[in-house]
Amino acid sequence: MGNDQKVFKTLYDRERMKIDTRLQNALKNRRPASLYEPGAYIINSKGKRLRPLLVLLSAKAVGGSFNQVYNAAVAVELLHNFTLVHDDIMDHADKRRGRLTLHKKYNPNTAILTGDSLVSVAYEYLLKDCNGNAKNVIQSFTRGLVEVCEGQSMDTDFESKKNVTINNYLTMIKKKTAAMSEMCCNIGASLGGGSKEEIKALSKYGLNLGIAFQIQDDLLDITADENVFGKSIGGDLVEGKKTYLFLKALENAEGEDKRILNKVIDNKGIKWKEVKKYKELYIKLGVLNQAGKAITSYTKRALSTLKILNDENQKVFYWLADALIKRTR
Amino acid sequence: MGNDQKVFKTLYDRERMKIDTRLQNALKNRRPASLYEPGAYIINSKGKRLRPLLVLLSAKAVGGSFNQVYNAAVAVELLHNFTLVHDDIMDHADKRRGRLTLHKKYNPNTAILTGDSLVSVAYEYLLKDCNGNAKNVIQSFTRGLVEVCEGQSMDTDFESKKNVTINNYLTMIKKKTAAMSEMCCNIGASLGGGSKEEIKALSKYGLNLGIAFQIQDDLLDITADENVFGKSIGGDLVEGKKTYLFLKALENAEGEDKRILNKVIDNKGIKWKEVKKYKELYIKLGVLNQAGKAITSYTKRALSTLKILNDENQKVFYWLADALIKRTR
Repeated sequence: MGNDQKVFKTLYDRERMKIDTRLQNALKNRRPASLYEPGAYIINSKGKRLRPLLVLLSAKAVGGSFNQVYNAAVAVELLHNFTLVHDDIMDHADKRRGRLTLHKKYNPNTAILTGDSLVSVAYEYLLKDCNGNAKNVIQSFTRGLVEVCEGQSMDTDFESKKNVTINNYLTMIKKKTAAMSEMCCNIGASLGGGSKEEIKALSKYGLNLGIAFQIQDDLLDITADENVFGKSIGGDLVEGKKTYLFLKALENAEGEDKRILNKVIDNKGIKWKEVKKYKELYIKLGVLNQAGKAITSYTKRALSTLKILNDENQKVFYWLADALIKRTR
Repeated sequence: MGNDQKVFKTLYDRERMKIDTRLQNALKNRRPASLYEPGAYIINSKGKRLRPLLVLLSAKAVGGSFNQVYNAAVAVELLHNFTLVHDDIMDHADKRRGRLTLHKKYNPNTAILTGDSLVSVAYEYLLKDCNGNAKNVIQSFTRGLVEVCEGQSMDTDFESKKNVTINNYLTMIKKKTAAMSEMCCNIGASLGGGSKEEIKALSKYGLNLGIAFQIQDDLLDITADENVFGKSIGGDLVEGKKTYLFLKALENAEGEDKRILNKVIDNKGIKWKEVKKYKELYIKLGVLNQAGKAITSYTKRALSTLKILNDENQKVFYWLADALIKRTR
């Protein structure tokens, strides 16, 4: 696999650059500048471009080509960035990827409207790659948009809800995070001319990969190396977020441990200096291990769907899942 | 025409009720309630439902049926309500149709997300009525969304721009208002199975009707009967909005009149007690007459496109244009 890994990394880097250029072009020379310049600002904050990658890989996996789906790949990244812009307003976030968030750089009104406009341009680009399959593809894309709104609303509900269960959490992240990666694989495979079974299998890959990715996100918040991670460790605890780790801890804890965890809920978060204490409690309660197991389990579920593809086509999806599990930020 | 008018009014009232019911059903029993209850709140503020009506009438005019396009009609009204919700946040508006605006009834975060979700459900409903023509229909719908964002951004730009021309204004309202009624006729006629020429003609009707409608809106703000209008006269002047009337006045004025008008720009509005003085200035400068002529001219342009339809099918569009010109609020 060593050589394959290098090949895939090279492919990823190359395609990421292509996607970046196409994203920039999608918003360039459009008027009014007051709308599209802020759009370009958020698009220029270099992201991982994982969602476009899923579109490209899914199209290729079913016998299609990257060229068939570049516009769709742009569309999913625009849609993703719409969620970032609006979420950042709602979360009162000041920074994203080391730069000012859009509503801080400009103002909330501009950020609301820019987000809306990213959705509109996203559909515009998606349509460029649609032909006979327009209805199915746009249905899937729309489902992604519906779910991401529902997931965001559930996430907000959780802030004031006391009895959130792991199942509630899983439903929420399926909608907020995994529905989007599911959709990316779905439209990539559809546009690439995949069979019903191939589309279904790849969608399932995207869904389970998305769940694993989000739990990994929760885990990194407490286990990452601060220097690599780029932000302080324990931010989720400080904000009182009901993450996979926190809810598992609550499930496992008894007595004094439970009381300490409930304090996080009652106080809507902890102090930065308390992070270490809670990390130790997580370790004591076996929560970090459980999260790791959940990540492995969802990743396995993702990979198990790939059998429908030939061996050669499976490889890159194995590489991607592996890279995501091993990521450090 | 007397009898026709009664028939059309009855048809309109009946269809408006059907649309209301379908709109309510579109958001009923969906979870999470935190997302769809605020959506239902805005949908329940009874609007004119003109946009859905345009969809229905356009489908029928080309030989289709209302039943083919009820979901599309719901879709355009959901999209319209999305713009209202986000615009009200941006305008810091407290009231809409006599009720609290969504961000006042709930909070800005809920209003941002509810608006987003209305877009998502709008596409969902539009897709229900799409078959072979999905791509064209969704392209038109998406164009409407793109333009309404651009128009809103231009409108915001105008607030701080000193040298806005009537042409700038017309471009802005074409995008912010008329693109949506154009789109309604376009998708109605497309889904109803219209020919290319019919779709083009009805789209043009919708566009010009929308422009006339917006200039009429500007005119009513100063000429309406306050009791019927439901809000205070001169609100646009108080807010310093660059309406058709204001820009025409600026174009016509010289010397002292021009200075008085420029004060509105410099002070970003006037006091309520000054409204009467400015209304008199508008009258002196012939601006109310000019606006009336513009409304008639755009309405005529709208009607001139209808020749492609048979006489019977034209009638209802004449009735609608007439009703909009004669409206008092």
